[in-house]
Amino acid sequence: MIKAGIIGATGYAGGELVRILASHREAKIVWYGSRSYIDKKYADVYRNMFRIVDAVCMDDNMEELADQVDVIFTATPQGLCASLVNEDILSKVKIIDLSADFRIKDVAVYEQWYGIEHKSPQFIQEAVYGLCEINREDVKKARLVANPGCYTTCSILTAYPLAKEGMIDMDTLIIDAKSGVSGAGRGAKVPNLFCEVNESIKAYGVANHRHTPEIEEQLGYAAGEKVVLSFTPHLVPMNRGILVTEYAKLKRETSPEEVKAIYDRYYGEETFIRVLDEGVCPETRWVEGSNYVDIGFKIDPRTGRIIMMGAIDNLVKGAAGQAVQNMNLMFGLRESEGLELVPVFP
Amino acid sequence: MIKAGIIGATGYAGGELVRILASHREAKIVWYGSRSYIDKKYADVYRNMFRIVDAVCMDDNMEELADQVDVIFTATPQGLCASLVNEDILSKVKIIDLSADFRIKDVAVYEQWYGIEHKSPQFIQEAVYGLCEINREDVKKARLVANPGCYTTCSILTAYPLAKEGMIDMDTLIIDAKSGVSGAGRGAKVPNLFCEVNESIKAYGVANHRHTPEIEEQLGYAAGEKVVLSFTPHLVPMNRGILVTEYAKLKRETSPEEVKAIYDRYYGEETFIRVLDEGVCPETRWVEGSNYVDIGFKIDPRTGRIIMMGAIDNLVKGAAGQAVQNMNLMFGLRESEGLELVPVFP
Amino acid sequence: MIKAGIIGATGYAGGELVRILASHREAKIVWYGSRSYIDKKYADVYRNMFRIVDAVCMDDNMEELADQVDVIFTATPQGLCASLVNEDILSKVKIIDLSADFRIKDVAVYEQWYGIEHKSPQFIQEAVYGLCEINREDVKKARLVANPGCYTTCSILTAYPLAKEGMIDMDTLIIDAKSGVSGAGRGAKVPNLFCEVNESIKAYGVANHRHTPEIEEQLGYAAGEKVVLSFTPHLVPMNRGILVTEYAKLKRETSPEEVKAIYDRYYGEETFIRVLDEGVCPETRWVEGSNYVDIGFKIDPRTGRIIMMGAIDNLVKGAAGQAVQNMNLMFGLRESEGLELVPVFP
Amino acid sequence: MIKAGIIGATGYAGGELVRILASHREAKIVWYGSRSYIDKKYADVYRNMFRIVDAVCMDDNMEELADQVDVIFTATPQGLCASLVNEDILSKVKIIDLSADFRIKDVAVYEQWYGIEHKSPQFIQEAVYGLCEINREDVKKARLVANPGCYTTCSILTAYPLAKEGMIDMDTLIIDAKSGVSGAGRGAKVPNLFCEVNESIKAYGVANHRHTPEIEEQLGYAAGEKVVLSFTPHLVPMNRGILVTEYAKLKRETSPEEVKAIYDRYYGEETFIRVLDEGVCPETRWVEGSNYVDIGFKIDPRTGRIIMMGAIDNLVKGAAGQAVQNMNLMFGLRESEGLELVPVFP
Repeated sequence: MIKAGIIGATGYAGGELVRILASHREAKIVWYGSRSYIDKKYADVYRNMFRIVDAVCMDDNMEELADQVDVIFTATPQGLCASLVNEDILSKVKIIDLSADFRIKDVAVYEQWYGIEHKSPQFIQEAVYGLCEINREDVKKARLVANPGCYTTCSILTAYPLAKEGMIDMDTLIIDAKSGVSGAGRGAKVPNLFCEVNESIKAYGVANHRHTPEIEEQLGYAAGEKVVLSFTPHLVPMNRGILVTEYAKLKRETSPEEVKAIYDRYYGEETFIRVLDEGVCPETRWVEGSNYVDIGFKIDPRTGRIIMMGAIDNLVKGAAGQAVQNMNLMFGLRESEGLELVPVFP
Repeated sequence: MIKAGIIGATGYAGGELVRILASHREAKIVWYGSRSYIDKKYADVYRNMFRIVDAVCMDDNMEELADQVDVIFTATPQGLCASLVNEDILSKVKIIDLSADFRIKDVAVYEQWYGIEHKSPQFIQEAVYGLCEINREDVKKARLVANPGCYTTCSILTAYPLAKEGMIDMDTLIIDAKSGVSGAGRGAKVPNLFCEVNESIKAYGVANHRHTPEIEEQLGYAAGEKVVLSFTPHLVPMNRGILVTEYAKLKRETSPEEVKAIYDRYYGEETFIRVLDEGVCPETRWVEGSNYVDIGFKIDPRTGRIIMMGAIDNLVKGAAGQAVQNMNLMFGLRESEGLELVPVFP
Repeated sequence: MIKAGIIGATGYAGGELVRILASHREAKIVWYGSRSYIDKKYADVYRNMFRIVDAVCMDDNMEELADQVDVIFTATPQGLCASLVNEDILSKVKIIDLSADFRIKDVAVYEQWYGIEHKSPQFIQEAVYGLCEINREDVKKARLVANPGCYTTCSILTAYPLAKEGMIDMDTLIIDAKSGVSGAGRGAKVPNLFCEVNESIKAYGVANHRHTPEIEEQLGYAAGEKVVLSFTPHLVPMNRGILVTEYAKLKRETSPEEVKAIYDRYYGEETFIRVLDEGVCPETRWVEGSNYVDIGFKIDPRTGRIIMMGAIDNLVKGAAGQAVQNMNLMFGLRESEGLELVPVFP
Repeated sequence: MIKAGIIGATGYAGGELVRILASHREAKIVWYGSRSYIDKKYADVYRNMFRIVDAVCMDDNMEELADQVDVIFTATPQGLCASLVNEDILSKVKIIDLSADFRIKDVAVYEQWYGIEHKSPQFIQEAVYGLCEINREDVKKARLVANPGCYTTCSILTAYPLAKEGMIDMDTLIIDAKSGVSGAGRGAKVPNLFCEVNESIKAYGVANHRHTPEIEEQLGYAAGEKVVLSFTPHLVPMNRGILVTEYAKLKRETSPEEVKAIYDRYYGEETFIRVLDEGVCPETRWVEGSNYVDIGFKIDPRTGRIIMMGAIDNLVKGAAGQAVQNMNLMFGLRESEGLELVPVFP
């Protein structure tokens, strides 16, 4: 039985890790870290866990954690993981970091977009970008995994096969993304109050959202060229779910059948990616609570563009589910263990 | 492996049966009955089941079903199950009826409240009221189980221990209930459109909702007297969840500790009933997606009343989850098999 | 033109005052008080007011305000108005206090339920309880009006005629109330975050909510007896609206026609109270954005109870609209000036 | 006093016309047409109008209407207005058609996108496209106005100044639009049920939505060239509101100041268009219930694109409000009469 520790167990991503690991047959949580709720019963913070989790919240002591657990999940704000990790810790324990600290290979890019100094750049090269379907083999061998962001997971996987196959003009790629509110975290801020979000939609972080360079880097690897794209996130009045609508010029004429075949070639064997039938648009309700990515597309002969669409549950495939998927790979477990979550509807 | 058939598999309760049974290790669905979608792929109706369920929808043929399966779930409008069932069928297959046809022992009461003639009153006596926590032993031996209504499950379980112990004056019992919209079913009706329900709350069925006699009958058995009570349902703009707020005069002075002890005596060993700590109010969000009933209470010395509160997911403990719980009991399986669903939050 | 000042102009009730007064033909706001946003443009806080309100937020200086305006609205937490008001101020300006400071005549009751010391009890007797439909003549002469609470406005008006006429047994009165989230204010607190409220319903303040004594006092005046009742508020995932469902034993047999006639006798001439046709249940969506109270009822011969129901927009008739209605009365204006707001649906 | 008749008064757009005209000082409705509810009291269908509208619903008889009223609003499905209108009617009455029948000048394009034969193409040339801010002078003289679609109003106005000024490369224009559910109308269809829409977001009509040619035609006039663009609508779980996010390559380097100045030049004097300060993104909550269009933009030097954003209330500026604005122009009234609606928040 793998022993897991969570730093940041009372945020929404942390809470989802607890929910998923509660049904995992090969791992158990032994450390519920939450600086805000030290000594408080976890189930008093997340009452859905009443009678399921009996533990109290602990401080965020990575040194001590490293001695007690096999894997640490850091579900914390940017900068924390980078400020805590060191060689001694990495020699004892595997780390899956849900923050952005180790996602971007170029430290200057990280520091520019996040506006903070990176405290342990020496581990950036070693860290594996934990997008399982793309980097599966590297994840298996990693001791430090950078768990991808929610928007990025959905954005990258939706475009990846066509970028990789050179089907689309990367200079024309535009990603219009829509997210439920849990992506904004559990911090007590006026803009996230019910009445401020409900019955409204807005764009935010236009032309400067921090997930942009992460998407550009990964799609750049796929396309084999430097990618600069437009990424616009929007806040949608719902708890969970991310939908991306991606636009790009096709480099040449193609058919729905050919495009479908490409997607199937890349994802046909993937447990968690469902390529929808031609003409079917993904909807976030069909993946809610699950680790699935639903992908669809439409060719528009009038404009010569293809519209690619992807839907995930931002807390599962976009955070905790993918983190567990990474853990499964790192420890040689069945990749889908604990993740056979049937989407909940309605 | 138990073979199950569903009549009415494309309603919300039917859909939830499919979701739950998809993870059940001892049962599998072999017949997805849906008169509205015959020959259509089930996953084209409920796209969350894409790549999980490959079957097409079938007609509602109970005769044929009885030859093919071990248990039939009828998730259909009132009257259908009663019109189809007969001795031959019951000799071959167990039936769990999610409609109201066999819930009420007095056929005259049924016909009065439901306004339809009962087509097979000869089975009413035999049918077991499938509130597992109350009638567990009878359920185990039943071949026909009347699965309780959503409001009634929550209403009865919340008051049951105090009614049974004679703590409350049953003549003063008032149940004010609030439900999410999935309880209204998937029929295409204007009052259930998004814009009609969203941003509003209303009472409906005031003083004449059909779940009233069912609650009265069951709490009458508990109290050992005829019970006549007020029951008022309300429609709340959310997908899932029922909350009941129940008011009754205490027959004598008591303490929170004594009341808590009574609840614990009845429910302390129950897997799916969580008696909350004193002063904690249940909230539907903490049971969403799960088979739990969360129960709390507050004594009001000013009025001499106790306010009892209960929360369930109407589609799980209020319908499909309880149906599976009944199935598990009827077939001698572990009662919680397939039902260890951790509540999903947010 | 009446000059108005608002203390607490950036809370939800304050914001609604601004919205309503923007269309008022006889009054204009000259002081947008908001301690949290001093010197910030009001329209940068409430962007709906962009190009409509050009002012910047001011500090809460009641002394200075008293010299500049004809009426002050205090839309602030409990205790503030009582701590600022004095004879000098009251001699210069009329005050409409949206907090609870002057609602309850017995200062001991106030201090017990609110847990704070009352700083100017000498004005409690003078203050008029500003439920316009009940205390219209007193309001006209008042210099200090205690604007009723949102729950209380709806709770009292719904039961008032039957209490006054002695139709119901006040000892059996139970008020089960449901409110949208704006009633909780604009404070940045975790329980009011979108994801905490959305897709859930809960009771809170069970048996101890602060609006209880206010309702009891007013209905006590109506009934001519001391009233002790059960009041239970619930939080509903919607922005606006309060629905109350009130239960009481009828003292004698009656008919819907008789009850309707009583309601019509009291409210038939009222601009803002709409007594619904028999059997029609009020819904919050039908009053949204307006100053209406919709009232309906149902007699239940089985239990001998009557179920009374009322719906308001908590920010309008439950706060800002009623405050303006009070202002209109106090200054001899047409009572409905600025309040002919047609409910917005959907 | 202008007498108005509505055909289709019980749809959401019709209902909004009723709400707006209820406060209009120069017009009154004398005919509430609704084929579905003939002889039913209007206020029994839209109970918000209880005690405000006393009329009963009438059949859709345009001939008779033409004799009784000064202006007819047709808030009906495509094809109806075109099938009813004739020279005799147009000689007696002004018509404001909220359907698409007279929006598109090329009848072949209309018939291709809408899949129906146009029944009165002889009036297409005469009809004025009622986007008041663009075609004000023509509207004033019109007897037949084609009221623009909801998506199109927002899409066109957001891009118009930059298209007209040749700032953007029209071949690169992509419009990603998001709408509340009232845009889907009040028809009883499963996809519009609360539980199907709530907690989800989806794209629909990808690459083939009917508003596309309307946007292309109008922006083509502005740009002075044939425009072919991508338009993707999305369904958002909220009642009202449309947000468009539009992407285009800038033809040359520019500055936020220059772009702002262009917008101000076109819209600075417009009552209903609010050009937001630089860097401010529009949100639908800030225009809800009002006739405003809020427009913002962001230049992205990395990609050489500009992101333009616009927000409207789809039922007001996107339908009924704009129709009243057109009526005001056609009858020589103050353009904003009845439309000084302050946005409602929250």
